[in-house]
Formats: sequence, C-alpha cells, structure tokens
Amino acid sequence: MKVAVMGYGTVGSGVVEVIESHEKVIKKRTDGVALEVKRILDLREFPDDPHASLFTKDFNEILNDGEIEVVAETMGGVNPAYEFTKKLLEAGKSVVSSNKELVAQKGLELLETAKAHGVNYLFEASVGGGIPIIRPMDQCLAANNIEGIAGILNGTTNFILTKMIEDGMTFEDALKLAQDNGYAEKDPTADIEGFDACRKVCILASLAFGKHVYPNQVECEGITKITLEDVAYISSAKGVIKLLGQIKYIDENSIAAFVSPAVVFNGSQLASVNGVFNAILVRGDAVGDVCFYGPGAGKLPTASAVVADMVDAAKHTQRRKIFGWGEGSEDYVIDHKEKITMPFYVRAKAKQSEIQRIFSEVKFLTRYGQPSDEVAFITDEMTENKLRQKLDAINTINIIKVTNY
Amino acid sequence: MKVAVMGYGTVGSGVVEVIESHEKVIKKRTDGVALEVKRILDLREFPDDPHASLFTKDFNEILNDGEIEVVAETMGGVNPAYEFTKKLLEAGKSVVSSNKELVAQKGLELLETAKAHGVNYLFEASVGGGIPIIRPMDQCLAANNIEGIAGILNGTTNFILTKMIEDGMTFEDALKLAQDNGYAEKDPTADIEGFDACRKVCILASLAFGKHVYPNQVECEGITKITLEDVAYISSAKGVIKLLGQIKYIDENSIAAFVSPAVVFNGSQLASVNGVFNAILVRGDAVGDVCFYGPGAGKLPTASAVVADMVDAAKHTQRRKIFGWGEGSEDYVIDHKEKITMPFYVRAKAKQSEIQRIFSEVKFLTRYGQPSDEVAFITDEMTENKLRQKLDAINTINIIKVTNY
Repeated sequence: MKVAVMGYGTVGSGVVEVIESHEKVIKKRTDGVALEVKRILDLREFPDDPHASLFTKDFNEILNDGEIEVVAETMGGVNPAYEFTKKLLEAGKSVVSSNKELVAQKGLELLETAKAHGVNYLFEASVGGGIPIIRPMDQCLAANNIEGIAGILNGTTNFILTKMIEDGMTFEDALKLAQDNGYAEKDPTADIEGFDACRKVCILASLAFGKHVYPNQVECEGITKITLEDVAYISSAKGVIKLLGQIKYIDENSIAAFVSPAVVFNGSQLASVNGVFNAILVRGDAVGDVCFYGPGAGKLPTASAVVADMVDAAKHTQRRKIFGWGEGSEDYVIDHKEKITMPFYVRAKAKQSEIQRIFSEVKFLTRYGQPSDEVAFITDEMTENKLRQKLDAINTINIIKVTNY
Repeated sequence: MKVAVMGYGTVGSGVVEVIESHEKVIKKRTDGVALEVKRILDLREFPDDPHASLFTKDFNEILNDGEIEVVAETMGGVNPAYEFTKKLLEAGKSVVSSNKELVAQKGLELLETAKAHGVNYLFEASVGGGIPIIRPMDQCLAANNIEGIAGILNGTTNFILTKMIEDGMTFEDALKLAQDNGYAEKDPTADIEGFDACRKVCILASLAFGKHVYPNQVECEGITKITLEDVAYISSAKGVIKLLGQIKYIDENSIAAFVSPAVVFNGSQLASVNGVFNAILVRGDAVGDVCFYGPGAGKLPTASAVVADMVDAAKHTQRRKIFGWGEGSEDYVIDHKEKITMPFYVRAKAKQSEIQRIFSEVKFLTRYGQPSDEVAFITDEMTENKLRQKLDAINTINIIKVTNY
C-alpha cells in the first residue's frame, strides 16, 4: 500500500525510518500488506537524504495521487496541517497524526469529515508518544464508565521536577539542563506553563466522555512557581510534586478538567514515574485503576505509534473504525475551583497558631532550615475558592493541589 | 445483539452484571448495538438469581440458537470449555474468553478454527485481568520488534511477596492471610508454584512472536523457597523479589521463556507494583519500555475485559479481526539456563574468602542478624549452568535471578 508523510522533522523522519526498518513485523500485522512511502511533503531541502527522490513541496502531489491511501501528518501546528488533513479525508484518504495541537483544536470536525467520507482519522501518537492509550481507552475499557483520569503528560516538566526532587537542582538549573539535553525548546513556555499537557487533556477528555473539550476550556497552571522548599516539605510527607493533567466525570453534561502541579503520595503508580517518562492513570467503575507508562516523546517511540496507526488504517480500508466523539458545550467543563473538593498543600509566612485558628484540622510539615516565620501544611478536603477565602488574611507563598490518584 | 455466558462463577456473573449495568456506555462504543444476555450455561442451580429464567444445563441450547452471535466462555479449565468453544466457532459464533488455561493449551487451534469460520476468538481477560495488554500489544506496538517482556502476572504471589517485604511476614503467614482474604485457593499450588503465571507467559509469548508456546515448554519456579532472610539481603541492595514471567527474543526460530522469582531493583516500574496488582512491561526496539499496570484479577475488573471483547466482537460481525499466531516447534523455547546470561543473587553457608576465590567480582550484601558463616552476594552476568558449576563445592541456600527490567 502506498502512503505519504507530511512533515520531515523528528517524528516524520522517524516514521519513514520505522516503516522501512520494520517491514517484516508490519506485514505480519496486516496479513501481508507492506507500507511503501511514495511521497514526503516538506518545504525544506534534503538533498543528501536517501529519500531525496520522494520529496515534494506541493501538497497536491499527495492529494491528487490516487495510489496513496494513507497519509501520516507529522507537521505539527494547526495551519496548514488542518486544511491539508481536511482535504485528504475529503478525498477518501485516511490520515494518522501525532499533532496534538490540531487534534485538540479541530479533532471533532476532522473526525466528522472522516466519517462522512468513510475513512479513518487516527492519532494514537498525539497523547503519550509511544504509550498505547487512545486505543486501550476506546476498546479495552469499553465496558467501563470512566470516573477520572490523571496523567503525567509532559516529559520536559517531569524531567525538571525529577531533577529538583532527586538532585536538589533549582527550577532554573533543571530547565537549563533540559534545554542542553534537547528535552526543552529554547522557548519552553508551552511545556513549563502546561499548554502541551493541556492539549493532551483535551484529547483524553474528549475520547473518555464523548464530547469535544477545547484547550481554552481547560485551566492551566505551570511549574514555574515550584521551589526546592516546596519539594522538601512535600518530601517530608512522603510525596512528590508532579505536573498532572486531571479529568473528573461529574455527570452526563459536565466534567472537570485542569492542568496543575499536584502532590502525589508515594505508593501511587504516578509517584515513581521519573525523568522524561509519561504515565496515564485511568479510573474505571468496573476495572478500578489501570496505568499506562512509557516514553511520552522521542523520535522512534512517537514514530512507532504513528506507524501502528498507519497499519490499523491499512487494515481498515474497507470499513471505518467506530471511533469519535460529539460536540460539547460552553459550560461542559465546570469551574473546578468552585465545585471540586480536595486537600491542598499550603506554604505561607505565618505562625502555626494563626493557621490553627483558621482551619479545624491541618497536617503541619517541616523541612531542614525552615524559618521560624514559615509554615507549610496539608488541609482537609475543600474547594479551592473556599481555601483562598480562608487564607485571605494570610501571606501565602504557594498552594498546590493534592491528588487522590 | 443476543449473547450467552458459559460458566456463572465469579467472572461469569460479573459479565452478566457489567453487561446490564453498562448498557449505555456499551451502546456508545458499538454505535447503538446493545448486548442482551439470552442464555447462561451452568450445571449448578441458581433459583434465587434474578436471571433464573435464562439458565440452561444444555450446551446445545446455546449452540443451536441462531440468534446468539457472541458467547463469553468463563468456565475455566480445558474441558469441556475446549469442545464447547470449538463447536461454537464452527457454528459461526464469536467466542470471548477469560480462560488462560484453555488459551495457553489450545489457543492456536481455536484461533485457526475461528479464522476458518470467519468469526473471532478473543481473550483480553486471560492475561492481566482488567489490564489492557493483548490488544495494545497486537495493535499499538504493531511497528515494533518486541525484544522482551517481563510481567508480574499473578496477584496472589505478589500479595504474599509484598507482605513479606513490607510487613516482615513469613511466607506461611502471608499465604494464610492471602487465603483468609480470598486471594488464594485452599490448594494454592497453581499460584505459588508459578503455573498460573506460566499460562499467561505462553499467551504473551505466542502473541508477541507469532508462534504458539505451550505450558510444558516454559520452566516454572515458584516462590516457596523465598525467605525473609533473602528479602532482607535484597532490600539492602535496594531491590525487591517479584515472581516474574520473562520472555526474551533470541532469533526468528527461538525465544527464552520462564517463570521464576527475580530481583527487581527500585526505580524499575515493576518494583513499585504491590499487593494483588499486576504489571506487564514490554520492551520494543522502537518504543523502548512501556508498562501496563492494574488489577490482575477480581470479578468486575476481569468481567469488564470480557465484556470489552464482546463489544469488539459485536463491532466485527461483518469482518474478522486479523489476529492470531502460528505453530511453533519443540525446540522453539531454548534452554535459558544454558543460553541466557544474567546476574544472580546467591545466599550460601560459606566464607567471603571462599566466594572471592571462585568469582572474580561479586557484590556482597549484608543483613541485620547475619550469621558469621552465611554470605549473600550478587554475581556478574553469566549463565545459570555456569553459576551452578562454579558453586559446585559451596553449600548454597538460595539462588535468585536478577532481572534487567
């Protein structure tokens, strides 16, 4: 079967590599159908690449090629990936994607376009890189009502937090190291502010509960305010700080979804996920907690997930997979600060006696070198708005959610 | 769609419960097709059960019912589950199963029968209970050459080992507690000798490498020889003992596959899997390590995996899933003791100087209360046969494999 790849960056070049190096195992999974890359779309020049003859700068050479049945979109960004994908689906070609930004923004529309034209739009690689998660959630957990999802969805921030927790590096030094290692971009905003994790939360939430969630519906808090002092206090409570994307089912017409640092206690499967690895914990009403762990990014891991989708599309040329979701609504994602209760970690310039007057019960934490005018504690469960109201007169330094995953 | 359930034990009654309680989410996944239990096969009487009218003791009432398209086999054991399954597949009905013993013994034949009759034989629940593993391996990792698999595949033994490690209970006390909690049978042989894990290793190996592996090809060592002394030594090396099923790819015509206690160092995703939970780590050449964690047994978790397979079968009535494997050979599973090198943990009645004379380099371990005539150490990598040859003149108490997962 002839296929094409759009975008010859890290993932796209990995896709071509995996297709070529894994011909044998791919044919085993397709009952004998090999994938053959016929065209690669990229505006850049790759004169020394062994695939030089396959390159084109003209999208129409892929769109109008009747032989090409499946296209991998590894360009990233919404434009022009959106227009290209839409036209390909309309032309009866299946598209597989690693582009989380596009799926989070336009997934619903593209899934509907695919359905209308009897082809598939698949994007296993858009969440968790090489970790199988989209398909297991859609198929293996089909007999569960999903109650919640919590994921370490961004390897860069998990690397930074791991360095802070395990090696006592400051946030700034850990970020610098992540950049030196190629884990973080020069402009790390999308990672450290949680925007990348946010897109993955949108895709997971849409899939789990059947209604599209858009990035602007999901509140994001990044990790830039986390300090070694917070790490030390939380370590004394046998916990770690992770950047989590969390989704909670409320009822048929509402969910909560947010990205923020969160305290995870040791013993949780999420607590031992270190470095650039990702993990996604899904809580189903029948199965309980299941957790998927693996490399959340990287050339070959992500490429292997894209190629697995191409294999699936190749197996389903005669028949569409039943897979997709519908339109949500503006108030579908509720205000979690007003509605969701949980414990919180608080660090403040205050005396223990002041805190004790405000809260009926808290657990005070200690750290080496703790100043006499600083307190840190974990509260009972309450809403975030209630907490902030209680802390109104207190000089708060940091507040971090405590998760029950 | 009309379905039937054969075997109304823990899992089978769970299947009926999940189908009824999850009608809405099931219809979402099948594009509107509801599952309706028309018949339940069991030789026992359930006069007070709300489904009393559905029971039959006559298998032919299911076999000859043209309305029934999908059957869940949750009987366990090879006979009569094997004959029943075979006849149902031949009659053009899809069968889904939680029966690891049957799949490990007869999976190849039943998959071929299903293929010949254009129906599906699915068994997600046979490995890892509610943990999605069969489908992710078959589909999401389709573009990987799998290099190895290591799994905590039996919850009973993992519960016993966790109690020994965390609470200092003896093996006997921990087994008793497992029996009191209903995690272990009165006759716990299949669990503690590794036979249950062995069946799951067979299924995973068959799926990963495309050739059927039979239980008698997989050497099993149980956990009955593990003592608190071993636990203490290995803890001092920052490790834990787990009962692992391990599979290693050698070449197209051979693999290694064995079940045994193994030292897992902290930091491994397998080290933090405690209690009755299971986890399966898959190492692919493109993706690296991915790990699947969750409840490996239990009524509703296992039932939810069976029902997910029923949903999948219901979605694929017009078309078979490409899924299966071929015949292996007698020498397909190699003698790992002769061919596979790894480090080993050894405990012996001996002096350090004796050990040092035999091994060029070992890492000695210590424990509180260590007798002066006892040593424990971790060796370099070597084959097990080579190790035993070296230890020929030593009074060895225990030898445990050290894993690199």
